[in-house]
Amino acid sequence: MSSKKLINSVDSCVDEALYGLVRASEGLSLLKGHRVVIRSDLDNLRGKVALLSGGGSGHEPAHGGYVGAGMLSAAVAGGVFASPPPASILAAILCLHNAGAAGVLLIVKNYTGDRLNFGLAAEQARNHGITVDMVIVADDCAFDRPSKAGRRGLCGTVLIHKLAGALAEEGCPLDQIVLKMTEVLKRIGTLGVGLSPCSVPGCLPSFDLPPGDMELGLGIHGEPGIKRSKVASADEVVKLMIDQMTNPDSQSHLPLKSGDSVVVCVNNLGALSCLEMGVVTRAAIICLENQGVVVARVMSGSFMTSLEMAGVSLTLVRANQETLRLFDARTTALAWPHLSNVCVTGCRYISDPPAMRPLSHVMRKTLERVCFTLLEKQEELNSLDRAAGDGDCGNTHAQAARAIQEWLQDHRVPGCPGKLLSVLAGLVQEKMGGSSGALYSLFLTAAAGHVTEEQSSAAAWASAIHAGTEAMRRCGASACVGVLFICLWAIMCLLTKRATLGAEGTCNLTAQAGRASYIAAERLTLPDPGAVAVAATLRAVLEVLEGQK
Amino acid sequence: MSSKKLINSVDSCVDEALYGLVRASEGLSLLKGHRVVIRSDLDNLRGKVALLSGGGSGHEPAHGGYVGAGMLSAAVAGGVFASPPPASILAAILCLHNAGAAGVLLIVKNYTGDRLNFGLAAEQARNHGITVDMVIVADDCAFDRPSKAGRRGLCGTVLIHKLAGALAEEGCPLDQIVLKMTEVLKRIGTLGVGLSPCSVPGCLPSFDLPPGDMELGLGIHGEPGIKRSKVASADEVVKLMIDQMTNPDSQSHLPLKSGDSVVVCVNNLGALSCLEMGVVTRAAIICLENQGVVVARVMSGSFMTSLEMAGVSLTLVRANQETLRLFDARTTALAWPHLSNVCVTGCRYISDPPAMRPLSHVMRKTLERVCFTLLEKQEELNSLDRAAGDGDCGNTHAQAARAIQEWLQDHRVPGCPGKLLSVLAGLVQEKMGGSSGALYSLFLTAAAGHVTEEQSSAAAWASAIHAGTEAMRRCGASACVGVLFICLWAIMCLLTKRATLGAEGTCNLTAQAGRASYIAAERLTLPDPGAVAVAATLRAVLEVLEGQK
Repeated sequence: MSSKKLINSVDSCVDEALYGLVRASEGLSLLKGHRVVIRSDLDNLRGKVALLSGGGSGHEPAHGGYVGAGMLSAAVAGGVFASPPPASILAAILCLHNAGAAGVLLIVKNYTGDRLNFGLAAEQARNHGITVDMVIVADDCAFDRPSKAGRRGLCGTVLIHKLAGALAEEGCPLDQIVLKMTEVLKRIGTLGVGLSPCSVPGCLPSFDLPPGDMELGLGIHGEPGIKRSKVASADEVVKLMIDQMTNPDSQSHLPLKSGDSVVVCVNNLGALSCLEMGVVTRAAIICLENQGVVVARVMSGSFMTSLEMAGVSLTLVRANQETLRLFDARTTALAWPHLSNVCVTGCRYISDPPAMRPLSHVMRKTLERVCFTLLEKQEELNSLDRAAGDGDCGNTHAQAARAIQEWLQDHRVPGCPGKLLSVLAGLVQEKMGGSSGALYSLFLTAAAGHVTEEQSSAAAWASAIHAGTEAMRRCGASACVGVLFICLWAIMCLLTKRATLGAEGTCNLTAQAGRASYIAAERLTLPDPGAVAVAATLRAVLEVLEGQK
Repeated sequence: MSSKKLINSVDSCVDEALYGLVRASEGLSLLKGHRVVIRSDLDNLRGKVALLSGGGSGHEPAHGGYVGAGMLSAAVAGGVFASPPPASILAAILCLHNAGAAGVLLIVKNYTGDRLNFGLAAEQARNHGITVDMVIVADDCAFDRPSKAGRRGLCGTVLIHKLAGALAEEGCPLDQIVLKMTEVLKRIGTLGVGLSPCSVPGCLPSFDLPPGDMELGLGIHGEPGIKRSKVASADEVVKLMIDQMTNPDSQSHLPLKSGDSVVVCVNNLGALSCLEMGVVTRAAIICLENQGVVVARVMSGSFMTSLEMAGVSLTLVRANQETLRLFDARTTALAWPHLSNVCVTGCRYISDPPAMRPLSHVMRKTLERVCFTLLEKQEELNSLDRAAGDGDCGNTHAQAARAIQEWLQDHRVPGCPGKLLSVLAGLVQEKMGGSSGALYSLFLTAAAGHVTEEQSSAAAWASAIHAGTEAMRRCGASACVGVLFICLWAIMCLLTKRATLGAEGTCNLTAQAGRASYIAAERLTLPDPGAVAVAATLRAVLEVLEGQK
């Protein structure tokens, strides 16, 4: 993991990130002279409990992203991984108090610095006659025997923001919110795993994690975890995490049994890809359901990060009806995701695809000759392709030829030319693959509708070829189209007797699609292998048709 | 950038990630046998145009995360960075058609494979009598002279999903949507920059980017960009990007002039930290406003990623009233963020903090003695601290002592003991810093309210000390509190004459907060330096008070 950063300076990055957040959101303001994000609509706080949280930066979108109706009233940021100063915390409390709030609840992650600084500001606020209370979030399940400093505060904090925020919005008094959150905190547990460390701007990565290793139970400040091991599969890692979180032998475990309902938060610690996040989310749902646990809600995304650490944390909240009601309540906070309010377990998530109408079948002899020719030319085409592409042009055409040969063994060739083109389209699409397969299939499919048993005149063929050409043009494949169009037109009219349908003439065509289109034209001095294949095909068709005249 | 991945297998990761997405969302289903995410409420499509998009995986949340009312009706995923098969695209089209949709619009990123496969499925659907049309998104501004394959489709695709989706939801007919999107596409431009490459699961990183280098104009499949340079500041990089995007000499530029309104999308390509995203978002807003451009809306987050690439892309849409109306329209799509519907430029984002009540002043002599003692003991305290902490305990106490000395020069010492404690609390908080500063300040602040000019009896002091102790206990600092409590109680009663307030007795105290709390108790054989400092302070107070009796 690199310690490169896209910032302006180590000193200003926190202030600039807060500026970016606040300007990108309608309802947020910065408190002048402080790193405080505060709701712009403070009038709406009158008579309600105000919620204030915060802590070191580097955990974005926490906490500024959770400021909004139904969540936090304000958030105070410190430097990266540094607790915010009490003066700013106090300024925020005074603001909320002056707005008419019925008391201020501080939601604080359990770290010494945060507890001290928020605690100090709370005492100062009380000296000003303000009603203040504090909830300490300590949801880390890493340590079986936590130190006297207690369990660390991790992503569970975001859930407390949500649940307490919903209560405050409903008009619940401060002491009741504290009581309810104290009770909820017994039902929350979090555990993290990292595949890479993070690095504080201006510093080297916080610890060293060799390729292939992962670290279980790490904190959100680059603190190493409790156990290092080889990276296992996502299913195994998630199982390991949930086992540790719910192990009754650990003092910091979350009691969880079959039949319990949970809210699950799958939190990207920073640099895990969204693809991996989906894989881990699946693993978490399945692992819990396998244990008989009802997954009531799932949120998956970046909620409490640790700079650019590639890792994930799982937070579980054992949920009752009230938990779900508060979880589902509306909020305007920017970083709270759009979520379903329907129980995940038991919710139908597979749809049946519509029944496909069967595809339908021209001259067996022509097809056999085409297949024979393409197989014969396999090496020649590969060799031409090696000059400009990946050397598999002969192979892909041979695949198509063999697929058609197999099909011919088991099927009656349909009398309707349109039906045959459709069959061929399906075969090359399925068996040939790649851009070539799609290209042939596209042409054949678009052409198929224009020639029927009743209508297979030269004019009908012309309009079929025109339709195929247009379809390819719409998809950006115009060079090959030129070749196909000219050649097919010539053949289908069964008139021209130009025996050498010149692929050599394509030397001066530039590939306009596919990977070869990114190669400089000067490097292409050989004929385009795709064009050679098309020409060979058409020559085979022509030979048979001419033989039949 | 490591190529470690938290997945189960390269083959299954796409399917598993889709499963994770769909199960975590109420309104989504998977089409059995296909990598197709589709709305569960297909009934709501009746009579409206359905929207289908898709492409290779590895760009999550695109496209599955954009399925929902007001955006896509379904999304088809291919393998990682591989175009989806036409059979799945066709299955999705048929599903939407069968649900009663008034035509299907395919929104396709401009890549050969996607154009071919979507184009082929469209032809096949037309053979089934379904009304299908296609919009090709080609928003890349990297190349001044794009190749014949045209500009690449990047994050602008997400904006097209949104705008077209809002139109479809309003009941706008297919041809009108195509017409309007064709017009909008002339007003969209995107450019990316990467600090690291991405790596496809099972493969090595796609290109090599040495420490300190960045790559401008890269694609979303690990394709290298147009220009490599040293990582510059966020402001410079954003300026460079916007200049390239709007440079009239480039054939792929976005025409933009002072007074124009834009929607800005700041897109995390995968592994940029949220902190950096905030910094880049600020830079983009300021850079555009400096050019006289009105920033109408900003969205900032992960919208069209490139696996775990550490980088960002900017998308600009020149916006008119209709663009903004469609952009602001409601959607239930999981990956569309909560956004403001108010113009960013001109929106107030700074609040004034409340006026702080001035803090207020006991015996000058006592304070002078305390300061003298602490400065005298600076090296002794540092030395004790080196054994268990970072060796700065003497320095931080000396900072506090000098701050109090300076303050004494300029101020009258207040007669009210509570006021003096408040002043001292403010001084140590501001000048001493760290956990020690917070700890002293917390105690002094909580104690201050309990002793006034009228009420400074031993009982009042006892309750002040009790309040201070309680405040510290609530913040988790109990060991030091013990020392402070016992000593201060002794002194404030002015009775005990124990001359040696024993810090040596703290050898068997374990630090219960602060960094030292993470150090094993066995390693602590010397007295706790913080306790020695407290004892020295109190001895100084006691000596003065005793001298005055």
